[in-house]
Amino acid sequence: MTVSIAGPVLVLGGARSGKSAFAEKLVENSGLPMHYLATGRAFDDEMRERIAHHRAARSGRGWTTHEEPLDLVGQLRRIDAPDRAVLVDCLTLWVTNLMMEGRDIAAEFSALAAFLPEARSRLVFVSNEVGLGIVPENRMARHFRDHAGRLHQVVAEKSAEVYFVAAGLPLKMKG
Amino acid sequence: MTVSIAGPVLVLGGARSGKSAFAEKLVENSGLPMHYLATGRAFDDEMRERIAHHRAARSGRGWTTHEEPLDLVGQLRRIDAPDRAVLVDCLTLWVTNLMMEGRDIAAEFSALAAFLPEARSRLVFVSNEVGLGIVPENRMARHFRDHAGRLHQVVAEKSAEVYFVAAGLPLKMKG
Amino acid sequence: MTVSIAGPVLVLGGARSGKSAFAEKLVENSGLPMHYLATGRAFDDEMRERIAHHRAARSGRGWTTHEEPLDLVGQLRRIDAPDRAVLVDCLTLWVTNLMMEGRDIAAEFSALAAFLPEARSRLVFVSNEVGLGIVPENRMARHFRDHAGRLHQVVAEKSAEVYFVAAGLPLKMKG
Repeated sequence: MTVSIAGPVLVLGGARSGKSAFAEKLVENSGLPMHYLATGRAFDDEMRERIAHHRAARSGRGWTTHEEPLDLVGQLRRIDAPDRAVLVDCLTLWVTNLMMEGRDIAAEFSALAAFLPEARSRLVFVSNEVGLGIVPENRMARHFRDHAGRLHQVVAEKSAEVYFVAAGLPLKMKG
Repeated sequence: MTVSIAGPVLVLGGARSGKSAFAEKLVENSGLPMHYLATGRAFDDEMRERIAHHRAARSGRGWTTHEEPLDLVGQLRRIDAPDRAVLVDCLTLWVTNLMMEGRDIAAEFSALAAFLPEARSRLVFVSNEVGLGIVPENRMARHFRDHAGRLHQVVAEKSAEVYFVAAGLPLKMKG
Repeated sequence: MTVSIAGPVLVLGGARSGKSAFAEKLVENSGLPMHYLATGRAFDDEMRERIAHHRAARSGRGWTTHEEPLDLVGQLRRIDAPDRAVLVDCLTLWVTNLMMEGRDIAAEFSALAAFLPEARSRLVFVSNEVGLGIVPENRMARHFRDHAGRLHQVVAEKSAEVYFVAAGLPLKMKG
């Protein structure tokens, strides 16, 4: 199937839901030059393995990869161009990084919200839905899922399409 | 949009999913006098802050607030009246309170199920979906999510409409 | 309602979501002889109670029960027959058992994927969606939810219908 991306797209899903593969397919079907903005940082072997696994899966398929753990909005502005698709994978890792560095989360979210309507690239955001389990006992984890939930609302509001992915299957929530 | 509420409505969602804002909009669009039944109790500053935040968001918009952590069904019966909307926020905090006080959960759920078809108010229930993460190691947490899941089934069965909210977007499950 | 089952069906849902009851109804409405393949093993009283509760709920409704915690694919092959419905409850307990016994998970998933298109029985799989909460601190729990997510993608791809159940209500994701 060919899917045209008319505005920002948000792809939400759980762990191993197939959300990234779905988002990559969206971009690959757009026919546009493909840019991948990775927000993840490897802190241990498990993460290094995951990042390498994802990179390998994209290799040879024509993606240009950028890595930016913190200044997501600045990086999006720097690579913004018409007739270009940019996949951001993922928003939840960006939130984690902002929290670890003690950044002003509300200001970052506002900056992203302000950028979205101006973007000339076709943006696709991947993020983990993390708010559907028991309240975490860990205070940082509670703050993290609050931030993530708020960010999803901010991005969804400015997005043309929102998908919830489970078992590799997309459910359209908006668009 | 104007939404008519023909029978009980259940609004399920995760943490920071926008479920309460969606439920409030449903009630505000009904054009009926608006009653808010808060089940939460503040045990620490974090909760006091959340309750105050929600209250402030409703302030000046014409809501009458009631607080009842345990006797939800009794309170619903006391304020029940035709041409009145009552928003209950939220069922999961009610379950928490019932557990903490050692109440007969099954009896409470049955009493609520019995009341729903008789209610003359337009009822809107908000609740947290908490069963989509890993099985909690904590035994109380396991019991809590079992109770919450059962209650959602009971209320959904008697409801005219059921919504699942993620990223601020409602997905209609029933109605 | 009568529901015809044309190929494998996957029923995903959270804890106490009503997923098993929905799957049982699918099979009971098929009009076919009903086989129940239980993958769970009781390790403590809580689990023994749950298994007994589910068994009691099926009793007197004409189900033949099989128990197989590990060799799911072998057991499915042994009882495979046309004009027969087989309900597997549930995939997540199977994954747990495979992990505890140190089995080759990838090989087991491949064997199941290979069997699905050949099956002559009408297969209905129940499984817990466990990937929508905070990343678990426990390493085994992280691996478990990764395996479960991958298995759901494998089974969903080969299934004719996929449902997500919440509050007892099915949402069709595929079919």
